[in-house]
Amino acid sequence: MSAQLIGRLNHVGVATPSIDDAVAMYRDLFGATVSKAKFALPEQGVWVCFIDLPNSQIELIEPYGDASPVWSFLKKNPSGGQHHICFEVDDIVAARDAMRDRGATVLGTGEPRMGAHGVPVIFVHPKNTGGVLVELMAKPEAH
Amino acid sequence: MSAQLIGRLNHVGVATPSIDDAVAMYRDLFGATVSKAKFALPEQGVWVCFIDLPNSQIELIEPYGDASPVWSFLKKNPSGGQHHICFEVDDIVAARDAMRDRGATVLGTGEPRMGAHGVPVIFVHPKNTGGVLVELMAKPEAH
Repeated sequence: MSAQLIGRLNHVGVATPSIDDAVAMYRDLFGATVSKAKFALPEQGVWVCFIDLPNSQIELIEPYGDASPVWSFLKKNPSGGQHHICFEVDDIVAARDAMRDRGATVLGTGEPRMGAHGVPVIFVHPKNTGGVLVELMAKPEAH
Repeated sequence: MSAQLIGRLNHVGVATPSIDDAVAMYRDLFGATVSKAKFALPEQGVWVCFIDLPNSQIELIEPYGDASPVWSFLKKNPSGGQHHICFEVDDIVAARDAMRDRGATVLGTGEPRMGAHGVPVIFVHPKNTGGVLVELMAKPEAH
């Protein structure tokens, strides 16, 4: 049995061909709101916008640039769909090391990169996590 | 602009070929715990088990019976993957009617059915929700 490594479900990542259309859908169909306009995260190859829920968020991601990793997802799922889930961790480097020690593959170089919340993140390969792409992010300061 | 219809992100539904294996993975890799053993929901065609997080849950679902709707998902995603997201609503019948009034398709007969938390639920067709299967559930009593 491992010590509890993951904390809050920070967000569910949802890929979309159009953040503008998705925001309009969440507003018109569900009455859900956005606290901040969409913004680009060039190093991750995505446009990002968060739908706010009382306990969590939906992270809408749209491809940014030709090399965006979201294009391959949208090729398989042209209307968009659930792309990843993100859990908070206390220490991102310790979490990265734990993933490797426990036999999981961390994507890319494994060096934590700045995520959409301004804190470092890593991604764990879905082959190790039941087909689900898992993002681990350092716990943001403000909660 | 619609009134806020959806509340908390109650859970993320994750399909798996084996709840036992998935529970072991969440325990061994992430140190996450389960508060209740898996149980069958024959009317939905699934075995269910919840991974507890501080603010939400992962709902693991495994096919129950030959007619389970989860088989077609697993055929496309043999290792499993994200299957749906579930939002809480104050009034499930009003939410169902609102979905229809706003042009969305409610799956099945549209009559709310008993879900895994013992409260009635409906599902909205992913064609209306950016490729994401959305479950709406009546807010459980205890929070």
